[in-house]
Amino acid sequence: MTKILIVGGVAGGASAAARARRLSEDAEIIMFERGEFVSFANCGLPYHIGGDIQDRSKLLLQTPESFLARFNVDVRVMNEVVNINRNEKTVTVKNLLDGNEYTERYDFLLLSPGAGPIVPPIPGVKNPLTHSLRNIPDMDRILQTIETNNVEHATVVGGGFIGLEMMEAFHQRGIKTTLLELADQVMTPVDKEMAGFAHAEIRDHGIDLRLGVALSDVEYIPETHIASFESGESTEHQHINGHLNLSLSNSESLETDLLIMAIGVRPETTLASEAGLKIGELGGIWTTPSMQTSDPSIYAVGDAIEEADFVTGNQTIVPLAGPANRQGRMAADNMLGRNESYQGTQGTAICKIFDLAIAATGKNEKQLKRDGVDYEKVYVHTASHASYYPGAEIVSFKMLFDPKSGKIFGAQAAGKDGVDKRIDIMAVAQRAGMTVEQLQHLELTYAPPYGSAKDVINQAAFVANNIIKGDATPIHFDEIDNLTDDQVLLDVRNPLELENGGYIEGTLNIPVDELRQRMHELPKNKEIVIYCQVGLRGNVAYRQLVNNGFKARNLIGGYRTYKFAKM
Amino acid sequence: MTKILIVGGVAGGASAAARARRLSEDAEIIMFERGEFVSFANCGLPYHIGGDIQDRSKLLLQTPESFLARFNVDVRVMNEVVNINRNEKTVTVKNLLDGNEYTERYDFLLLSPGAGPIVPPIPGVKNPLTHSLRNIPDMDRILQTIETNNVEHATVVGGGFIGLEMMEAFHQRGIKTTLLELADQVMTPVDKEMAGFAHAEIRDHGIDLRLGVALSDVEYIPETHIASFESGESTEHQHINGHLNLSLSNSESLETDLLIMAIGVRPETTLASEAGLKIGELGGIWTTPSMQTSDPSIYAVGDAIEEADFVTGNQTIVPLAGPANRQGRMAADNMLGRNESYQGTQGTAICKIFDLAIAATGKNEKQLKRDGVDYEKVYVHTASHASYYPGAEIVSFKMLFDPKSGKIFGAQAAGKDGVDKRIDIMAVAQRAGMTVEQLQHLELTYAPPYGSAKDVINQAAFVANNIIKGDATPIHFDEIDNLTDDQVLLDVRNPLELENGGYIEGTLNIPVDELRQRMHELPKNKEIVIYCQVGLRGNVAYRQLVNNGFKARNLIGGYRTYKFAKM
Repeated sequence: MTKILIVGGVAGGASAAARARRLSEDAEIIMFERGEFVSFANCGLPYHIGGDIQDRSKLLLQTPESFLARFNVDVRVMNEVVNINRNEKTVTVKNLLDGNEYTERYDFLLLSPGAGPIVPPIPGVKNPLTHSLRNIPDMDRILQTIETNNVEHATVVGGGFIGLEMMEAFHQRGIKTTLLELADQVMTPVDKEMAGFAHAEIRDHGIDLRLGVALSDVEYIPETHIASFESGESTEHQHINGHLNLSLSNSESLETDLLIMAIGVRPETTLASEAGLKIGELGGIWTTPSMQTSDPSIYAVGDAIEEADFVTGNQTIVPLAGPANRQGRMAADNMLGRNESYQGTQGTAICKIFDLAIAATGKNEKQLKRDGVDYEKVYVHTASHASYYPGAEIVSFKMLFDPKSGKIFGAQAAGKDGVDKRIDIMAVAQRAGMTVEQLQHLELTYAPPYGSAKDVINQAAFVANNIIKGDATPIHFDEIDNLTDDQVLLDVRNPLELENGGYIEGTLNIPVDELRQRMHELPKNKEIVIYCQVGLRGNVAYRQLVNNGFKARNLIGGYRTYKFAKM
Repeated sequence: MTKILIVGGVAGGASAAARARRLSEDAEIIMFERGEFVSFANCGLPYHIGGDIQDRSKLLLQTPESFLARFNVDVRVMNEVVNINRNEKTVTVKNLLDGNEYTERYDFLLLSPGAGPIVPPIPGVKNPLTHSLRNIPDMDRILQTIETNNVEHATVVGGGFIGLEMMEAFHQRGIKTTLLELADQVMTPVDKEMAGFAHAEIRDHGIDLRLGVALSDVEYIPETHIASFESGESTEHQHINGHLNLSLSNSESLETDLLIMAIGVRPETTLASEAGLKIGELGGIWTTPSMQTSDPSIYAVGDAIEEADFVTGNQTIVPLAGPANRQGRMAADNMLGRNESYQGTQGTAICKIFDLAIAATGKNEKQLKRDGVDYEKVYVHTASHASYYPGAEIVSFKMLFDPKSGKIFGAQAAGKDGVDKRIDIMAVAQRAGMTVEQLQHLELTYAPPYGSAKDVINQAAFVANNIIKGDATPIHFDEIDNLTDDQVLLDVRNPLELENGGYIEGTLNIPVDELRQRMHELPKNKEIVIYCQVGLRGNVAYRQLVNNGFKARNLIGGYRTYKFAKM
């Protein structure tokens, strides 16, 4: 009878336990969770704080009792595995309720401890009004602070998923919010110019977004508040009233009633490293594609591990729920004699920012640059469905690819409709090893409420292939401000568009539909740098000029890419 | 200087003209359109009738003038090409405004004449209250009939895309509607049990849906109505008032004020066949993957042609806008010296039916059966995004695959959210040649508003792979009503679910969470046929029973598949 011990009862651990039971009725399965809850919806926590998910119990997907009834898994909450004795194949478990310790033997041990929030050693950051958000008790504490401290202003440090979701949650509750981000952009899975759409959306909602700013000091100013025991308050209530004075790296200061630290997470590796398991270079538990650690009897999954990057094959750390769940299932398979291999993580991710969705898969440009990879990129901005049908929104889409082989490196999108779909399409295409040439032929669902006869992805593929085949010579938004005297900037939109929507300083303006008649106004000895709103008319103009003997380039993604890159 | 003539100015023709000009400034390009309009949004016509698209001018994407200005294409509306002289490489064109005929020489000729509505020779069907819908004048006539004939009841014959969209358009206008369909289902791209979701949605909206019924006779009962010339009516108004008495194949009759014939379309091949071009076995213009007809100087694209089926390689006719657009672009490439190949049509399609979307890609089960292909299938019904986040809807998903190789044959989905996305994912995966094994590893966008950590597609892949690996023995909805004495039906849902939602006659009921304790109630010498609501708990129960030495099968897709198959 195989005995499987599982450390951690959320995404990866719970998936593994359920799968293991389905494979074997007689395996003994014990799942240890040092917290109070198993299998809770950690991705849903910010939405309960914001009020979208009103019923807290909806976040509790399973209980120890339900797990036992359905899967015959012995779930032990408030039990922390504190030590692994690999020689004896036992673990030491501490019952956090009574403090007692005991040992359990294992045939296989699965580590799914997750990741903990990074809280840097900022002076004063440990105070009753500062919280991270990783689990149900964290959420409860934040809600309690909101309710008891009459929070009118909240500050979020970190523009990643949790930071952005908490920002929105506070805004929904009518709390004025400041978002501090050390980098020059939020949502690092996308590149800065794509994050521009997020920055605009965030500022449009009245959020005080401050980029390139760090938190350097926190001062807690408690108010005199004596707990009212009669109304159910405990002594701890005496400590959570007051406000914080924040000092920022740019010498500004800020008064706030609640501070969320959401600068990132760090793999929980204490148990693994104390047991002498190999830790990877990036600081996660090292694993094989079978999800085995350096000890073949010990598996590890989820946010705590390093895994292979799908695109580069290098080690990566991607703390996301999807990979964790699939890894857990696979680890169970392998512990029970199957032979499944994890096939790498693309890092497919999406975040809701008010009405905007912003998403990415594969490598972004920052990463490709850092790795010295030769790449090309295209941008398209096109309607989420037929533009003549109500509700169409612009999908702003970026695709990165190998200009020689057409291999897909990555894709990013932002918009108010259809963003998840386009990045899913790209995630599948990339995983299948498709080239941008093949993307031209994709046959996607089309009816006016859902798509277009030439979808966003088809259009991006057309643009990419025009570049690969030499039918288009691109110029990119970040080159436009550095044109030489041998280049002439030409806006081919209608004058009204320039007037109403802005334009790039120093441009000529000949609408594309007048270009054949007015071509003589352009110099043949200079390179004409064409732009329009999104790049489509620019391409028409580019082809006209080049086919008439001009030298030209077209701004890929047009003025819209240029404009949002500056947001 | 290459001279290109194009017959037909909508999807395929217009795409070809624009692409040809981008490739060559000096090609002479003339586009003939026998109708009044070019490049109109034919997919949008029903939505203007229904009122979703209020502004008629939004349907007119281009005009001859705009085409000339932007692409220097000579667009000749109301000019019909009536003859092709292949030896001389000329066409005879009739100017429909003045009746004059003239000839034009070509280097390359592109046929993009589209398809015409099939109107069977039903007695009385030619009358002023009966219409088809293919173009702007058709749409205008229908609107005129609605306005002048005080239409209270409309009848639509045919449950394909246009029939379904017209049904919804009439319903939106408050017109009582009958939908007649000869087959036992609407929306033939999906199989009957999946169409059940459409049938339920249609009937829920009060539509009089009659399946398996043909129209056999039409009697036009005109009302006495003398045109009021003073109020702008013409003599033709004298003929469009009255009603129709419809006789049906089941001896029923029906009185209606407006009749739409939407039983399908037939490729427009008259011009091609009179010119001696090869017509395929299915009745479309035969083409090569380069979009050439049997005459290498003549190309053909769009609804008029036969093309290769992506899955089988056989000839197929798929009158859809996406393929037409891409074929037009490709034909232009090849006429101007490129070497592009059309890579086959999957038939990816979607239809909005009130709040429901129903979609498919690849082959359906009817086609696989007809072709004698060995296949397996799975159904899952799972939330469009995290079920704890507001707005989640069930996606009902069917996947067909090769049980040996895991090759994807096709997929179908129905639901109120996220249907287009799932079929797009499958369309990409199929085109990329992925197997259902690989689908398990798809890494799709996940945040609670957009998806689930284990997406619909991952789940379907898990179920399919369980079957392929022998970890699950399936039984399907269409076998449930024919169980033998050696089989026992077991419902593993909670008693309340049976009570409130219905169940299959003759079933035992042991909730899955009590099964370990009550297993002894089941016979070991019979096969236990397990079902739950969607198949998930059924699988948990199946694994328990099989791992305890029982023989068992699990109803794939559960009671929900069984129930909707009967709709």
